[in-house]
Amino acid sequence: MGTSQLESVPEPKYWHLKTVLSDALDSEFAVGEILPNERELAARFGVARATLRQALEQLELEGRLQRRRGVGTTVAPPRVGVAVGDYTHTWTEAAGDDAWACVDSVEAVPPAAVMRLLDTDPDTPVHQVRRTRVSQGQPLAAELLYVPPASVPGLAALDGPGGLARARAVLRELSRLKLEGREQSVELGSARADDARELDRLPGAPVLVVTTRYVGEHRTAAVAVATYRADTCRLTFGDPGGVELLAG
Amino acid sequence: MGTSQLESVPEPKYWHLKTVLSDALDSEFAVGEILPNERELAARFGVARATLRQALEQLELEGRLQRRRGVGTTVAPPRVGVAVGDYTHTWTEAAGDDAWACVDSVEAVPPAAVMRLLDTDPDTPVHQVRRTRVSQGQPLAAELLYVPPASVPGLAALDGPGGLARARAVLRELSRLKLEGREQSVELGSARADDARELDRLPGAPVLVVTTRYVGEHRTAAVAVATYRADTCRLTFGDPGGVELLAG
Repeated sequence: MGTSQLESVPEPKYWHLKTVLSDALDSEFAVGEILPNERELAARFGVARATLRQALEQLELEGRLQRRRGVGTTVAPPRVGVAVGDYTHTWTEAAGDDAWACVDSVEAVPPAAVMRLLDTDPDTPVHQVRRTRVSQGQPLAAELLYVPPASVPGLAALDGPGGLARARAVLRELSRLKLEGREQSVELGSARADDARELDRLPGAPVLVVTTRYVGEHRTAAVAVATYRADTCRLTFGDPGGVELLAG
Repeated sequence: MGTSQLESVPEPKYWHLKTVLSDALDSEFAVGEILPNERELAARFGVARATLRQALEQLELEGRLQRRRGVGTTVAPPRVGVAVGDYTHTWTEAAGDDAWACVDSVEAVPPAAVMRLLDTDPDTPVHQVRRTRVSQGQPLAAELLYVPPASVPGLAALDGPGGLARARAVLRELSRLKLEGREQSVELGSARADDARELDRLPGAPVLVVTTRYVGEHRTAAVAVATYRADTCRLTFGDPGGVELLAG
């Protein structure tokens, strides 16, 4: 490890090209500008198409480029800081620059990993509320919120017809619950077909999967699994004790 | 949006294959087992090599497979929960199951983005301490910690010879500073060559980049940019107010 042990792993060719392309993006292109097509770029930099494609993929991973079907490859704007570590955005539907919107709701048995967090069994269906998070007209995240019946004891009386009305009723009841804390994890994933549709991405696009366990009354009150676009989002957490800089 | 508007974006062929492969991993393979080579797999599932490769890439993104040069493709163990949202792991070098180790230190002008967070100018070099985080013999993260001279006023008197001794002196002085808070962000990136070497990955491998801004005495005391392996790590944050489940 360290600079004293420079091992002789050769840098792949596309890696060097990536650096060259990155400099070109800084100096020659504006945000939103469409890049020349792959054939032209490969010719300009004197590389094979496959090498070029690898370099473009790297730059997409790093958020420098966006590739959209029917548009081509464009220079990406800087990633948006998206707060995922505070309570203010949760469970309220509001019209604003950054808001969650309910989509629908079903009752079903959750996946095994969620069941384990909720401590429910395979015979217990839970409320599954689908929400999307939109900022300035752009979809940021698609979420499934899993709520066991015990967390929304007042719901039966209201009993909506399912779908959107039901989703809102579940969230309204859930907001009555006093939360004691929450725990989150972030990991890399690839967009499932349904999430990809809502995020305006192709299935399989890299996403950041944020799992949130909400704790109330000494047990897991709800679990949310949210899929954030990895190309446009930088997720922010924390207690800055002052002015927030990373969220900008 | 939602289930009522199922758009007709066809699922790519590799996507279906990915699902089939994923089921096969569950039922036929054990963690650590080496998969048959690409030719055999393509023949078994009746797909082109390119399609197979795309499906394998997806499964790697999702943490189901690991591909290592010289070994082949193996079934990945479940991702490890790695706490990044607490103070206990920082600035102390300890021998343990999960510990940060100093590598070296230089004084240099930081990148523009870090300079902006530190509110330093291009004429002010800062201490750059390189650290690695290792858990059970596996590298989890490579970090560069940027510390402006104002945050370690006692350092001049000690003045180490640079390198590892200097790195430790900077951290020791930094630990005297009272912190008021911190702010973190997570985004997708690709491993730079130097980080890749320390993480035992190829350059360009997907990584999770965690930027931490430490606030002390009403200003940014230090900035850390840590690169976590996205294939093996699930980053955990938060204040569970109870038993931690996501870190398991």
